[in-house]
Formats: sequence, C-alpha cells, structure tokens
Amino acid sequence: MTAQLTLAIDAMGGDFGPSVTVPAAMAAVRRHPSLRLLLVGDPAALEQALNAHGGSGSEQLIIEPATEVVGMDELPSQALRYKKDSSMRVAIDRVKSGDAAACVSAGNTGALMATARYVLKTLPGIDRPAICTTIPCLDGQFRMLDLGANVDCTAEHLFQFAVMGSVLVEAVGDAARPRIGLLNLGEEEIKGNDQVKQAAQLLQDSSLEYVGYVEADRMFRNVADLVVCDGFTGNVALKSSEGVAAMISQFLREEFQRNLLTRAAALVALPVLKALRRRLDPRRYNGASLLGLRGVVIKSHGGADQVAFEEAIETGVKEAAENIPSRIDARLGELFQRGAVE
Amino acid sequence: MTAQLTLAIDAMGGDFGPSVTVPAAMAAVRRHPSLRLLLVGDPAALEQALNAHGGSGSEQLIIEPATEVVGMDELPSQALRYKKDSSMRVAIDRVKSGDAAACVSAGNTGALMATARYVLKTLPGIDRPAICTTIPCLDGQFRMLDLGANVDCTAEHLFQFAVMGSVLVEAVGDAARPRIGLLNLGEEEIKGNDQVKQAAQLLQDSSLEYVGYVEADRMFRNVADLVVCDGFTGNVALKSSEGVAAMISQFLREEFQRNLLTRAAALVALPVLKALRRRLDPRRYNGASLLGLRGVVIKSHGGADQVAFEEAIETGVKEAAENIPSRIDARLGELFQRGAVE
Repeated sequence: MTAQLTLAIDAMGGDFGPSVTVPAAMAAVRRHPSLRLLLVGDPAALEQALNAHGGSGSEQLIIEPATEVVGMDELPSQALRYKKDSSMRVAIDRVKSGDAAACVSAGNTGALMATARYVLKTLPGIDRPAICTTIPCLDGQFRMLDLGANVDCTAEHLFQFAVMGSVLVEAVGDAARPRIGLLNLGEEEIKGNDQVKQAAQLLQDSSLEYVGYVEADRMFRNVADLVVCDGFTGNVALKSSEGVAAMISQFLREEFQRNLLTRAAALVALPVLKALRRRLDPRRYNGASLLGLRGVVIKSHGGADQVAFEEAIETGVKEAAENIPSRIDARLGELFQRGAVE
Repeated sequence: MTAQLTLAIDAMGGDFGPSVTVPAAMAAVRRHPSLRLLLVGDPAALEQALNAHGGSGSEQLIIEPATEVVGMDELPSQALRYKKDSSMRVAIDRVKSGDAAACVSAGNTGALMATARYVLKTLPGIDRPAICTTIPCLDGQFRMLDLGANVDCTAEHLFQFAVMGSVLVEAVGDAARPRIGLLNLGEEEIKGNDQVKQAAQLLQDSSLEYVGYVEADRMFRNVADLVVCDGFTGNVALKSSEGVAAMISQFLREEFQRNLLTRAAALVALPVLKALRRRLDPRRYNGASLLGLRGVVIKSHGGADQVAFEEAIETGVKEAAENIPSRIDARLGELFQRGAVE
C-alpha cells in the first residue's frame, strides 16, 4: 500500500472495546505509514486507551466522537432504528460520505450487516450481501461464503455470491483465476437440493472457473479457492469445524496432562504443539468481508484480541486499496453486459 | 443379549466385500454365542473368505446366496429396478420376511435407503426415513440426524426425526430422557429458517425434552444427546467435522516429521498421540441407523475395516434386541394418541 488511505474503526465494538481496538489500530498505523484510522467512539474512553498504550499524539489516529454503542446481543432492527449515533453507525456513515475507504467492526454481526446494508446499499445486480471469510486447509487456504447473512438462498443468490467471492480472491487472494466449488452433500450430478443444482447450471454456463460440487470434508483438501453455499449451511460448516478443532485441542491437552510421563512428553513436544497452534490460529484468519455493498465493511470476531483485530484492519486495508466493491460492480457489468453503475 | 437373534449381513457390500465382512462376522458371533448371521452374497467368495479366516463350519454363520452386487456408484433407482438378486436386496428381504431381525450393509447409501424403503416401508406417521449416527464430543457423545437422506425437510419431518432419534437414544444410548437440540445458526429465538422455527414450536409443545437451538460448534460440548437437522445440513456438519479432524491429524504428522528433534519428540509423545487417535477413532462410531423403517437397517461406512464393520454389526445387534422400529411406532402412537399399528 503506497497511496494515502483512511479507514473508520468501530473502536467501541467487540467484547473488549478500546482496550483491544486502540492498540491494534496503533500497530496498524505503525505498519502502514500512509494509513489513517478514524477511531470512532467515546472520546474520553479512546483518549484514555491511547494514553495507556502510548499512542496519543499520532497524526495517523483521529478520534471521531460517537455517543452510543450497539450491544453484542442487541436486535439488529433496534440498533438500526434507535442507535443513530453508535460507533458502528458513525463508522459506516464515514464510508458512505467518502471520508473512509472501509469500516472495521468487531460488533454485533446482525446489526453491522443491517446497518451497512441500510446506509451503504447493495451494488446493482446484487440482491443480498454475503459474509465471506478465509479458512485454512491442507497446503493453503480457501474462502467461503455465505456464512450466515442469508438463511434461504435461490440459485441466483448463490451465483451472485460466486461472482463476488471470485473477485475478492482474484484481488486479495492467491489465485488469479479462482476455482469455485458449490458445497453439496456429494460430488455426483444427481445430488443436492434444487437451488444448488440450478446454481451449478448457472456457474457452468458462465465464464467463471467452476470446478463442480464440493463435499464438506474435501474443502479442507484444497480442491477450491472459493466454496459457495447458503448462509445456514455455511454457518454450520464453519461452526462445526471450529467445534471439532476446539474439541481436539482439548483432548490433546487432557492426554498430555494425564500423568507425569505424558506431562514430560508435553514439554518435549512443546515446539511441535506450538507450531500446530500457529497453523490453526484463528486470529490469522480474522476479518470477514461483507460483500455486495457499495463500500468495504469488515467484520472482526467479537472476541478478537489485539493480534486478531490487527488482522481484521489489515483485511480492510487490502480490500480498500483494491477497491473491491467497484471491482465486483465491474465484473457484474461484464457478466450481464451492462455498463458499470458505480 | 441373551435371546437368539439372527441378522442379515450384506457380505458383498463396501469397498472390501467379504475380506472385511466375513472376519467381522466371525468376531461378532464369537462375542455373542446366541447370535446367528446370514452372510448374503456369492457362496464361492464367502466360502473362500471363511476358509481363509478359519471360520468354516460355524453353525452361527449361514451362507445365503445372492448372485448380484450393487456398485458403490450405482444409481439407487437402477439398483432397485435391476438388481433384485443383489446381496443388499436379499439381506433386506430377509428382514422383511422375518428371517432376520436386522440388516447390516457397507454398500451404497442411496441404494440401501431406496431399497430398504421400498421393501420394508416406513412406519405409519413417518414420511421419510432418516440416517442417524453417533458422534464423539467433549465428555461423551451425541447422536445426529438426518445425515443426508432428505435434502429438503419440513418442520414436521424435523419433528419426526426428533421422535425417532430420541427413542433410539433412550433404548441404546446413555440418556433416559434425551436432550434434543435443533441445529441452527445461533441460539437466539429470532434466528434460523422457517422450517427450523416451526420445528422448534412443535418440539416445545411436545412432551419431548427439547433444549432449544444448538449452534454447530456447541454440539461438541455435550449440550444435547440428539441434534436434529435436515439431511443437507447434517451431511455438511458431519463432513466438515471429518475434514477438519483429518486436516489436524495431517498437520500434527507434518509438524512431528519436520526434523530430527521433532521426530524424537514424536517418539516420546507416541502414547499420547495413540490415546488421542483412540478417542477420535471413527471406527468406534461406525454404523449409522436408517430410522423410520419397519425394520432395523444399519449402514456401515463403505471403507470400513474389520474393526469398524464389527462395530456396525454390534449396532445392529443392539437395535434388533431393543426392537427400535416397534418402540418408535409405540412412541408415535402415544404422541398422536392413536393405537400402535405394527
């Protein structure tokens, strides 16, 4: 990143608020000398966090006042209607006004999606925004969407997700021509529900690199750069994966703590276990993209620590620098032979 | 098990056929002196396998001829129409005729489901059979259904799955009053699709022990004895879990093989790694139940080895001994205040 870039940070969001968002923001501006971050939230709390971490006086960090905070369990409709001066809302407003090129929030997912959709609007040709994240797999990583924004999806929605996700992977991922798979309960043509079968047809007929159905276990063997599914299924796939990984970690801990001998073994195996933990560290993959909006919005995990929130900011920086929304808009224009709108 | 019991084994099914099914059957009859197994398939191949493993002459093992085998990739409709003398079909026919109290097959899932449904029929009040299996979790295990038989499900179907699964857990599981959870993308009331929301209402209004929505990561923390979902979602949850577990195993292997030091650590940690593998060993959980039919049908993993297939036979023995289908029928009768039909 060389050009000047400004991002709006919902500095009050997430389980830990400024105690995490402020030091993460400080680390981000140290890494990117031309980056400016608007820290949106309660000025007193933000000043205090800046002072506590020795970050006062940086010209790259600008406090942007907002008097309210959206609760982690607040209903999205309530947040949208009654919290017009929340740190989340003001951060998104800054994207809308053009003062910021992206917004990063660790707040309530539903409220973030509802507010971003209301304020920024979707791109022409996109019915619904989707949530996309990066997931580690053997020999690499893949991206998956939707992860919970849309519980019921038509074939057209799934196709739109594929378009948006492939633009993202092209721009900020590892694949120039992303392999797109449709999540299904088998690889055979005859399997799956009607939406998935029709989406397969749409993808086959398009110029995208469609590689067919992907069964959920094969996602982790690097068979696709992008896995497309409805939000219900995607959420279940992601959460099942997280649940099993946590269970295996717990089993490993228990087995290594069983007796003196196994505790000694744990000491010997420590570098290996650390390497394993590093490879699976969810913090390295923090920062999900809300795709399909007229602006870049990044959702950090609510329980993110400083390292994880830094990663979410980094995701925002990359997507803003690449201007993902206008790339998606251009791609939709090509696919549907219309002029770009934005 | 004390009473005499006869099971029909599709001895040609699965990736390995008689080389796995025959020694597994021999081990099962050794464990249960009053168990008889009908080994259904090609008599020559079965005789040969029996001789090879020293199992000829056992009065508990009876060869039952069948001239055909259903291919692992064969279309269910084709198998049903054209392979009327397949080992799978004949094994199911023996359940229908009352000669066997259960059928165990490692064959093609779709063909097994289609044939079992056609031959045995569903219980009154059950629209669709479902596939149910046991999954390990922290401090125990849980059962989950449906795992792929039904891609689209109404609320009523989900409710039927809950009834069938809870009868199974009561009879052969660990819980006298199984906690039933509905798989959803969040624990809040407002989340989920319409089918799931309506199924929640049906469960709340019933006498079953409904514990609410369960998010996929929490399944692995022993929050429910039975997790209910449609077959598409269930398949994705199960396969995602398997994929992540396989990936973590692979990462562990790679990290332990990285250099001389880590290889030495692997030697020291070997008992721990073996204990971990034992706890996660999918063979211990082999044998999925096709619930909702007028007979016990157990589906073994196609790639099952002898230990795994033995476990599937064991599942069949338990469910036959408890007569799960008539228990389900009786429960449906209670719930809908009708006389038991079977």
